[in-house]
Amino acid sequence: MIIDGLQYANWSEKIFRQMRQGGVDAVHVTVTYHETFRETVLRIEAWNRWFERFPDLIFQGRIASDVALARATGRTAIFFGSQNPSCIEDDIGLVQVLHTLGLRFMQMTYNNQSLLATGCYEAEDMGLTRMGREVVAEMNRVGMAVDMSHSAERSTLEAIAHSTRPIAITHANPAAWHAARRNKSDTVLRALAESGGMLGFSLYPHHLKGGSACTLPEFCQMIARTAELMGIGHIGIGTDLCQDQPDSVVDWMRSGRWTKAVDYGEGSAAAPGFPPMPDWFTDNRHFGAIAAGLADVGMALDEVAAVMGGNWLRFFETSFGPERSAP
Amino acid sequence: MIIDGLQYANWSEKIFRQMRQGGVDAVHVTVTYHETFRETVLRIEAWNRWFERFPDLIFQGRIASDVALARATGRTAIFFGSQNPSCIEDDIGLVQVLHTLGLRFMQMTYNNQSLLATGCYEAEDMGLTRMGREVVAEMNRVGMAVDMSHSAERSTLEAIAHSTRPIAITHANPAAWHAARRNKSDTVLRALAESGGMLGFSLYPHHLKGGSACTLPEFCQMIARTAELMGIGHIGIGTDLCQDQPDSVVDWMRSGRWTKAVDYGEGSAAAPGFPPMPDWFTDNRHFGAIAAGLADVGMALDEVAAVMGGNWLRFFETSFGPERSAP
Repeated sequence: MIIDGLQYANWSEKIFRQMRQGGVDAVHVTVTYHETFRETVLRIEAWNRWFERFPDLIFQGRIASDVALARATGRTAIFFGSQNPSCIEDDIGLVQVLHTLGLRFMQMTYNNQSLLATGCYEAEDMGLTRMGREVVAEMNRVGMAVDMSHSAERSTLEAIAHSTRPIAITHANPAAWHAARRNKSDTVLRALAESGGMLGFSLYPHHLKGGSACTLPEFCQMIARTAELMGIGHIGIGTDLCQDQPDSVVDWMRSGRWTKAVDYGEGSAAAPGFPPMPDWFTDNRHFGAIAAGLADVGMALDEVAAVMGGNWLRFFETSFGPERSAP
Repeated sequence: MIIDGLQYANWSEKIFRQMRQGGVDAVHVTVTYHETFRETVLRIEAWNRWFERFPDLIFQGRIASDVALARATGRTAIFFGSQNPSCIEDDIGLVQVLHTLGLRFMQMTYNNQSLLATGCYEAEDMGLTRMGREVVAEMNRVGMAVDMSHSAERSTLEAIAHSTRPIAITHANPAAWHAARRNKSDTVLRALAESGGMLGFSLYPHHLKGGSACTLPEFCQMIARTAELMGIGHIGIGTDLCQDQPDSVVDWMRSGRWTKAVDYGEGSAAAPGFPPMPDWFTDNRHFGAIAAGLADVGMALDEVAAVMGGNWLRFFETSFGPERSAP
């Protein structure tokens, strides 16, 4: 079983077919960044048209058992997520509305301060806001996973502590391996694991030691070392694959409508666009290489299976349904 | 079993308890008139809060079997509807989005011309528009019932003919009984019945012969005569109960944002507000009186049961699921 913890591709029939060729059973896809609620709904409408056009390749995933349905019917289950809370505007009622429309992950922040928490590019980190605490509780209630991939350290630790359900960092790597601002400290990773949460290892070059030149063995050794830190049950893949996207999209991700200037984020004026992916992972057909690479660095087959999809499936099972009453 | 084909009350715990006291298993409730999509979502959010607050009284109905669930658990299933297509704006993709959020009925028009069809107060009736034909097909596909209660005659006949599924007139009476502009000709009622559609008999005084003074036997005799015209299988109740609403609401219904003046609709400058309901039907506890009245005018018990809920249940069964492929 293969589950990818995050992608934001320029979706097309080609990519959906590559998902099938790669045996990808489920993907958490980003549907929105800085979009308002209405704009987010337009993105969901576009997905509805893809689901209608390609019913033999993809369908909308809503509950964990849709992963089994995907396997049984030879398709890929698409689970929606947001990389910023712009989609709920200032309205906590939109959490349930978007959950009904299929949103299963929402980041508290995308790099900047949001109404809910502090992003990893701010100079100060105030932790969860008043609304942030309310929204985490509402996400817990309806079954929407809190994602802190782009959040700052204190905010992330507070989200872990405040959430009554395990949370996720769907796409990032350990900062101890590569000290990017988006990568996470051992303190965060330990707290995440102790709370039952999940880390998805990113293949976005800015998150990799050596960038685009990072080798498959280096990536897999990093995963094996992180398994020692976090435990084998709390790690998965979150490729952050942005296949076929024009550079205008990374500009939208970074600059949205919050600045009139250009924010280069993890890039730079000299390299403002999407960096090239490592040559051993450029599309959905290449998950097998990662599985083989993990075995090559000494992981047992059941551990490889857990990292490639089993752990995300368990996280889906405990995250997407309504909150259980206390016993 | 009791199913009401339309209500738009000023919802409260009192009314939800009256639904239980009256043994009402399901109600099609209006959630929106002239509201934009975003404003409609705010109305749905308000319902989500009621569902969360009163889970022992009400829950959201989505499929026909929710009526059985309501009976089994002693609650009322609430099915959403819109009295105007403002909620889809100019965007056909919002049909599926609103269906996902639970919308199960949508009127093509509310008195005026809409983007889809002509309302019953226009001087000219152009029938279904280009977008109207597309939206009816999309509603057929996803499982949202077309409601022509406030539409003009030609538009209604074209909707009946164009729709691949039976449609509804959820709240109106025969014009032959009372020649109100909102009541329907025998031509429409026959075409509706022949296509498998449903008429819900309205208790809104402007639709009643004699208005608020209409007696229960007169109302029930009218139903019995309409059964002869349409067949017993195509009629139900659609009270149009607007309990506890302030008159500002009927002004919104009639004038929305389309006029700076006041449109009195079925009312008048002398009587601009909600008319008083007949004294034998003022809230949800009074459905039993209608059932008894139908028996008193000679209807068999199985016919009474069909009119009070059985026919709406069958309509729900064929209307709310995804379209079946041709055999």
